[in-house]
Amino acid sequence: VHEDPRVNGTILLAVRRDFNALYAEAFAQHVPRESIRVWPFEGPLDDCECVVTYRPPEGLFARLPELRLIASAGAGADGVLGAAGLPTGVPIMRTLDPQLPQAMTHFVVAVVLRHLRRLHEHAAAQTRAEWGRVDLGVLRPATIGILGLGELGTHAARAFVALGYPVLGWSRTPRAIEGVECFAGDAGLAPMLARSEVLVCLLPLTPGTRRILNRDLFARLPRGAYVVNVGRGEHLAEDDLVPAIDSGQLTGAALDVFVTEPLPAAHAFWRHPKIFVTPHVATFNRPEQCAAQVVANLRRVRAGEPIHNEVHRHRGY
Amino acid sequence: VHEDPRVNGTILLAVRRDFNALYAEAFAQHVPRESIRVWPFEGPLDDCECVVTYRPPEGLFARLPELRLIASAGAGADGVLGAAGLPTGVPIMRTLDPQLPQAMTHFVVAVVLRHLRRLHEHAAAQTRAEWGRVDLGVLRPATIGILGLGELGTHAARAFVALGYPVLGWSRTPRAIEGVECFAGDAGLAPMLARSEVLVCLLPLTPGTRRILNRDLFARLPRGAYVVNVGRGEHLAEDDLVPAIDSGQLTGAALDVFVTEPLPAAHAFWRHPKIFVTPHVATFNRPEQCAAQVVANLRRVRAGEPIHNEVHRHRGY
Repeated sequence: VHEDPRVNGTILLAVRRDFNALYAEAFAQHVPRESIRVWPFEGPLDDCECVVTYRPPEGLFARLPELRLIASAGAGADGVLGAAGLPTGVPIMRTLDPQLPQAMTHFVVAVVLRHLRRLHEHAAAQTRAEWGRVDLGVLRPATIGILGLGELGTHAARAFVALGYPVLGWSRTPRAIEGVECFAGDAGLAPMLARSEVLVCLLPLTPGTRRILNRDLFARLPRGAYVVNVGRGEHLAEDDLVPAIDSGQLTGAALDVFVTEPLPAAHAFWRHPKIFVTPHVATFNRPEQCAAQVVANLRRVRAGEPIHNEVHRHRGY
Repeated sequence: VHEDPRVNGTILLAVRRDFNALYAEAFAQHVPRESIRVWPFEGPLDDCECVVTYRPPEGLFARLPELRLIASAGAGADGVLGAAGLPTGVPIMRTLDPQLPQAMTHFVVAVVLRHLRRLHEHAAAQTRAEWGRVDLGVLRPATIGILGLGELGTHAARAFVALGYPVLGWSRTPRAIEGVECFAGDAGLAPMLARSEVLVCLLPLTPGTRRILNRDLFARLPRGAYVVNVGRGEHLAEDDLVPAIDSGQLTGAALDVFVTEPLPAAHAFWRHPKIFVTPHVATFNRPEQCAAQVVANLRRVRAGEPIHNEVHRHRGY
């Protein structure tokens, strides 16, 4: 299976400590095992052609003078783009697992329908062996607003359309998706928010979207709205969430991503009864998909061809 | 709005004690308020033309000599068909709220995705402020088996197809649904069960489907399968469920319907950590839909025309 015998440098895997072994296995299917280094690596890295990472460790890039390709192991490249010492002339790619949008959609549908059909309330009633009351209101499909209409947002929006929900979408530049009422740009945000009974954040993390889920945005939603963040922790102004819930402006939130991960045990989100915390499990790139895409791009770099799934530094994704 | 001034008899509402007031309001939009009786009713019911009910109270039919139409307030008419004293010559209708299949589908998707994406485990970990482990296995879409391909089963099957799940369906008589691998009849059941990692019961309750979810059926499912019952409580052989879960053959179950409702506080289902109990909330007919359909059918009966949504006594639905 070693498809590319012309490897002339090494590939450094610096993903996540608990993932590196899985990645090493996956890369060994594509390149000779000897060309794989796993971080932390004591020896010299002068021959390193490519690094695969998510949030680059401090001092990483200073040790990689021969770098020709930087690969984000995730679909979002904000961790790479925000790293100190990022070399300017080296192309950056992200990994796009074809299974990722579907898995993300399943997770989003799961947490949104859990809220809309009051599964958490039924689970709580069950602990008291209590037969709950009938709420005819849950039968009306709520309006779902999706922030971000890239590959993930578009996939999720289409799923809610298929399920019969009214769906609004917002993106930086105008988009058209069948069955979705699309809004764009600064002017489009407020009217979209005003009707979003459930708001799902699937934006890329850029300077323009950092802390977009803040007190002012919450105030523009219909009273009693529900917020789902499956983008990045930094999309949420964390200090603004609990006050918005406790005031009744928001009914609650489902959060899969956090500014600090793992979420510290002392964080208030863990103990708030209306915040559902999940440990960054909405979706993943499979290591074998990452390996195949990285090795293919490395081959393109060597051949002087443009890479696929390139990250544009000025856009941030 | 009183669309039909030619009312010459009364309509008796004997639905559920907590629903009768809502039904009386809804019927008053279609017929004069004086023609509506609400059970329990002390006076004579000799002039009663029509009864709307779900599980007819004991002795009901003996008091209704002039009955011309029996309406099941639910989509399933098993409660009416199983009632003592059911008059033979009176047509039976069921209510079909056009919103009902979608609401049922939303509930089924909610409980199935809650299981597949381990939301209950994350909720449990949250109570301990514990950041859970990554399980790459949840990304693979499980195979969903739907028992019953009537209006509800077909709607749910299509939703899972739209979400990208492999879907199997089983019905008494052969059906064809795009994207769904359909099985039929006694011979088709075992091969369908053998591949259903999640099994959803949306069958009508008939003598042939009573206690269909039993030990033998559980044994035919893949080990670790998950069972969802949103049909009728009587579809499940309740005593067979806990042993099948405790042996590991089933991973768990979500139950919205029970042989006795409300589920008695002492019932073992309430306290089993792998059984999710909801209080018969998957879906409802809206009273206004029921009223419109009953009044329209009553008009047809008076005109000697065939009614819509007739229940066939020999089929049981």
